[in-house]
Amino acid sequence: MTSPGDTSSRGGRPRRAAVVGAGLIGGSIGLALRSRGWHVTGRDRDPDVAEAAKAAGAIDAVGEDPEAEITFVATPVGAVAEETRRVLAQPGRPKDAAVTDVGGVKGPVVAAVPDPHFVGGHPMAGSEQVGLRGADPELFAGATWVLTPTASTDAGAFARVQAVVGSLGAEVLSLSPVQHDALVAVVSHVPHLAAATLMNVADRRAEQHAALLRLAAGGFRDMTRVAAGQPGIWPDVCVENAPAIVAALDDLLQALGDIRRVVAAGDRAELLASLSQAALARRSLPARAVRPERLTEMRVPVPDRPGVLSEITTTAGDLGVNISDLEIAHSAEGQRGVLVLVVDAEAADTLAAALGRRGYRPTSRPLQ
Amino acid sequence: MTSPGDTSSRGGRPRRAAVVGAGLIGGSIGLALRSRGWHVTGRDRDPDVAEAAKAAGAIDAVGEDPEAEITFVATPVGAVAEETRRVLAQPGRPKDAAVTDVGGVKGPVVAAVPDPHFVGGHPMAGSEQVGLRGADPELFAGATWVLTPTASTDAGAFARVQAVVGSLGAEVLSLSPVQHDALVAVVSHVPHLAAATLMNVADRRAEQHAALLRLAAGGFRDMTRVAAGQPGIWPDVCVENAPAIVAALDDLLQALGDIRRVVAAGDRAELLASLSQAALARRSLPARAVRPERLTEMRVPVPDRPGVLSEITTTAGDLGVNISDLEIAHSAEGQRGVLVLVVDAEAADTLAAALGRRGYRPTSRPLQ
Repeated sequence: MTSPGDTSSRGGRPRRAAVVGAGLIGGSIGLALRSRGWHVTGRDRDPDVAEAAKAAGAIDAVGEDPEAEITFVATPVGAVAEETRRVLAQPGRPKDAAVTDVGGVKGPVVAAVPDPHFVGGHPMAGSEQVGLRGADPELFAGATWVLTPTASTDAGAFARVQAVVGSLGAEVLSLSPVQHDALVAVVSHVPHLAAATLMNVADRRAEQHAALLRLAAGGFRDMTRVAAGQPGIWPDVCVENAPAIVAALDDLLQALGDIRRVVAAGDRAELLASLSQAALARRSLPARAVRPERLTEMRVPVPDRPGVLSEITTTAGDLGVNISDLEIAHSAEGQRGVLVLVVDAEAADTLAAALGRRGYRPTSRPLQ
Repeated sequence: MTSPGDTSSRGGRPRRAAVVGAGLIGGSIGLALRSRGWHVTGRDRDPDVAEAAKAAGAIDAVGEDPEAEITFVATPVGAVAEETRRVLAQPGRPKDAAVTDVGGVKGPVVAAVPDPHFVGGHPMAGSEQVGLRGADPELFAGATWVLTPTASTDAGAFARVQAVVGSLGAEVLSLSPVQHDALVAVVSHVPHLAAATLMNVADRRAEQHAALLRLAAGGFRDMTRVAAGQPGIWPDVCVENAPAIVAALDDLLQALGDIRRVVAAGDRAELLASLSQAALARRSLPARAVRPERLTEMRVPVPDRPGVLSEITTTAGDLGVNISDLEIAHSAEGQRGVLVLVVDAEAADTLAAALGRRGYRPTSRPLQ
C-alpha cells in the first residue's frame, strides 16, 4: 500500500523536495513545504534570486537535490519542458521520485515530456504581488490545484504529487491537458487579454479626453486590474495555448457582437435577460474551494494497466469533483488493484454513476 | 457676490434640501447633507422606502419641500426627466432654487429638461451594496462628480450645485452632456456589458464542463464582479446611451479582433507591446480624486450672457481639471462679471492657455 499522503518526516529524517524557479509560486511552495517540516533545495536562473529565497526561508539550500522525492518546476511556461527534462535526467534520482510543474498551459509541456514520473500541474492561485517578495506559505490554502495525468502517468507519481499539494491546503482537480487548456483560456487567458484590450481602448480615448480616466470608477478598476500584472509572462502563455485562446476569443467576439446588436436595437427585454443571466451566474460562482464537510471513500477495482489512473481522476475532474485523497492498493498478484479515492460525499453518487458508465464498479462508504 | 459654498445654517435656520428617490445614492446624499446640518425632505415611489429612509436618518421628513434650495433627483435614469419636471413645477419654489440629478446618462435628460435651473449631474461613486441599506454619508468623499452645464444653464444654479456637492467631499468635473456620455460608455457601460458577456460565455462553457467555474480565480472574479450587480438599472442606461455604447463596443470589438489575430499569428513581440502598454496605462490610472495640495484662484472676466459658464467649466473638464470652488462676481453694471474658479495649481497654466485660445483673459493667483 503506497502512502504518499504522510507529510511527516520518515524515521526522523525530513522528507526532501526541490524547487526550480524561486518566484511567487516557487517561493510559496518552498515556504509552505518548509513550514511542514520538509527539506527544500532550490535554484533559479538568477543566482541572486536563489540566494534571496534562502535568506527569506523559502529554501534550505541552493542547488539541486538528486534525493528529492518531488520536484516543483516553477519557471515561466516556456522554460518548463527543458527544466523538467533536466531534473528527470539527474543521475541518482530515486526510482519513484515525481516531478511536477506549475505552468498555466499544460498540453504542450505534457506532450514534450512523456516521462511517466512527470505530472503536469497548475495551482489556480495568484497574488497581485510579483516574484519572491509576494511568496506566501498560505497561498494555496483552499485553492484549486489542477493535475493533468495522461495514459502514461505513473500512478505512484500521481498519488505522490496529489498528496503533497493536498497537504499544502489545495484541493486537487484532475483534468486532461486539453480540457485544462480549453477551460483556462476561458477563465484566465481571454479575461486577461480582454482586460488589457479594454484598458488600451480607454487609454487611446484618454489621449483626446483627459477627463476619461478621472471617470474610471470601481467597475472599470476591477475589470482592468489584472492588466496591471507582469506582461512578460503572457506572450509564452498565449503562443503555447493559441488554439484554445483563439476559440474562446471567437466565442467572446460573437457574444459581444450579439449584445451590440441588442443595444443598437434598443431591446430592453433581451438586455435584461442577458444581464440577469450574467448576474445569476456571477453570484453562483463558487467561493474558493472549501474542504467538504462530509467525505466518501470510493474504492474502484482497476486493471493494473496504464491509463486507468488518468481516466478515473479526470472523470472526477470533468464533473468538478476534487480528490481529497488518493491511494493505490495493488493486489498481491499485481494483475489487478484497487484505486481508493476520497471525495466530497455530495458528489459521490454522480461520480460513481459516471465511472459505472465507463465500466468500473466502484463501491462507496462514508467517512467519519 | 454669490456665496453658495457656505454650507452652515443661515441665521440659525438649517438650509433645506430635497431628495427624490431614496436608494443607495439618494440615501447617501441625505445622510451626507444631514450630517452637515441640512434639513432634508425626501420621497420615493415606494412609500415604505421613504419611511425606511426617515427611520435610517437619511431624511428628516417624508414628502416634498417647496422651500428646498436644491433638489437631488436620484431615481433610475428612465424616470429622471419626469421627476425633475415635477420638482420644477412645484408652486412656491424659491426663484434661485436648483435641481440636479444623479443619472448615468446625461444627453437625453438635459435635452428633455431645458430649464436653466436644472443642472445635470453624475456622481462617479457606487458600492457593491444596493439600495438604502448601502447608503453611506462618506460615499462621495474623494469621488469625481460630473456636472453637465449647457448654454442655457443658470450660473447661480450651477454654482449652488457645484458648492453643495463639493461640500460632500466630491471633486467637481464639468463636461458637456455629449462628452460625458461618450466617456462613461467607455469606462462604465461597455465594461459592464463586457463583464456580463464574459460571464455568460464562461457560464455556457460551464454547462458542459462543471470544472470550469472551479478554475475561476482572482482575475476572472475581478473582471466579472460588476456583472453581479442589479441588472434592472441597465436596460434604461443602454437604451438612453445607445449611440455612444455602440461606438465604444465597436472600438472594443475592433481591438479584440486585432489581438485575436496577434495570438493566432503567434506574434510574441506584438503581444508584449500591447500588454505592456495596457499595464503601463492601468498602473497610471489615477487613484480616487484627491484634493490637490496647492490651489490657484483664477479670475475670468466674462460677458454676462448665456453659455459662458458652460464653456469655461467644460473647457476645464475636458482637460480633466476639477473645480474646487466657483463663484460668480457680477459687476454693478450687470453687463460684465467675473467668474472666479479655484483649481489645482498644477493645472492652472494649461487651463489658462486653453481659455486664452477661446478669447478669455484669465488672471491667476496662488492660494495659501
